[in-house]
Amino acid sequence: MLIIGERINTSRKVKGEPVIENAVRARDAQFFIDLAAKQCEAGATYIDVNAGTLLEGEPDAMEWLVTTIQGALDVPLAIDSPSPAAIERALKVHKGQAMINSITAEKDRYNNVLPLAKEYETKLIALAMGDDGIPPDACGRMTVGRELVSNLTAAGIKIDNIYADPLVFPIANGAEFGLAVMDTIRTFKAEFPGIHASAGVSNVSHGLPQRKFLNQAFTVMCMTAGLDAAIIDPMDKQLMALVYATEALLGHDDFCMTYLEASRAGKFE
Amino acid sequence: MLIIGERINTSRKVKGEPVIENAVRARDAQFFIDLAAKQCEAGATYIDVNAGTLLEGEPDAMEWLVTTIQGALDVPLAIDSPSPAAIERALKVHKGQAMINSITAEKDRYNNVLPLAKEYETKLIALAMGDDGIPPDACGRMTVGRELVSNLTAAGIKIDNIYADPLVFPIANGAEFGLAVMDTIRTFKAEFPGIHASAGVSNVSHGLPQRKFLNQAFTVMCMTAGLDAAIIDPMDKQLMALVYATEALLGHDDFCMTYLEASRAGKFE
Repeated sequence: MLIIGERINTSRKVKGEPVIENAVRARDAQFFIDLAAKQCEAGATYIDVNAGTLLEGEPDAMEWLVTTIQGALDVPLAIDSPSPAAIERALKVHKGQAMINSITAEKDRYNNVLPLAKEYETKLIALAMGDDGIPPDACGRMTVGRELVSNLTAAGIKIDNIYADPLVFPIANGAEFGLAVMDTIRTFKAEFPGIHASAGVSNVSHGLPQRKFLNQAFTVMCMTAGLDAAIIDPMDKQLMALVYATEALLGHDDFCMTYLEASRAGKFE
Repeated sequence: MLIIGERINTSRKVKGEPVIENAVRARDAQFFIDLAAKQCEAGATYIDVNAGTLLEGEPDAMEWLVTTIQGALDVPLAIDSPSPAAIERALKVHKGQAMINSITAEKDRYNNVLPLAKEYETKLIALAMGDDGIPPDACGRMTVGRELVSNLTAAGIKIDNIYADPLVFPIANGAEFGLAVMDTIRTFKAEFPGIHASAGVSNVSHGLPQRKFLNQAFTVMCMTAGLDAAIIDPMDKQLMALVYATEALLGHDDFCMTYLEASRAGKFE
């Protein structure tokens, strides 16, 4: 399971304050080194970096974030932006295999992000949406996603580098949205052997109280359906404990060694 | 989802003390009324009652437990015993539809429990094991379970009253045991439309530390595979929160009304 730590995102607020954006504007290096290090210690294998709220300042901020974090820590980053300019600036300075979060079937975005993914041989999150927006049902999303993944592999992207993302909608808006995501994950993995499935699971709980329980349950459910990457908050110890437990219960953790080590290391609570 | 509260079991110890057994021997009525009431408040829909450690005193104890609990609370009970004599004494005084926990394909047990299930029209947990013990793999258990369920329905037990139990083994003893349970649940429900699936999920974590995380994850996973009854501790608020969340995410809770009500009622923490 690939855990993409979601905490470094300038749209995130703490008690109403845009603390991440403020720290980027102040170029507070230690703040980001600490926030990345804590996520790594908690079990993140990639650190997501999103500076979208800086608008025209985003490319500079992205380059600075990559060099700052990787100057202190040996961890790969997920470059989270729809902007090819910001992605390129980040990839130019990134060490190791980066992940691009994300490409879509939208014509411009596809044409601008694909060459970057090829040149830098990145991992690539592929969102099942096109120029007509996000298809409302699982079938429509699979139609868009199928064409997107087929085009990516035809263009030379290795299937092992593709993380298909079925797009998670809030369950409050439709009782069938959870099952649709699981169905789409199963279909992607059945139709494209070797592909990965990723999701921003926490969207599922939008608009509901005590969201963490919905996020935790949905992470376990999607892993059971084949999810092998998730953009989550690794500092939610309860969630991480359930991820380790689910890996063991799915038979991915021989003799429960990883579960036992994480438990002994105090990662669960 | 049918939640069978597991707390009234004389084999359960608290800090090494057999407090449940002691309370049965002392005929401490208020103790059991309180313990049943707390489980109901927490979300249990059936209360399991097991007095197996009393040996020859079990039938008397069972009758007393049923009359005591149902004298104070309007809740159905799961009569948890391999002893036909104890089950019969309990059923004679039980009000409403009881559940028998459990019948198996073992010849004597089958022949002795079946007439009770028919006479009292109970719900019935059917364990996938026979006179040769518990088949080690999913295929073997399904073979035993298939014959057991077929015999039960041929004998006149309604499919809606049958709760097939795939038998949960500790994941520490075999990495494939979690998947085997999920496969067996899916197969039972596909082969016998209208049947229910039940499991004692907490066996999965036997021998491992911080068992609650494994029990929580496995409950969510088995529900995703079709589990619709579970013998659990409803006073684990985290577990119950995940059960409510999973019901919503599986599309069983229109507009998340049940989740919202449980959240407002403070059932989650």
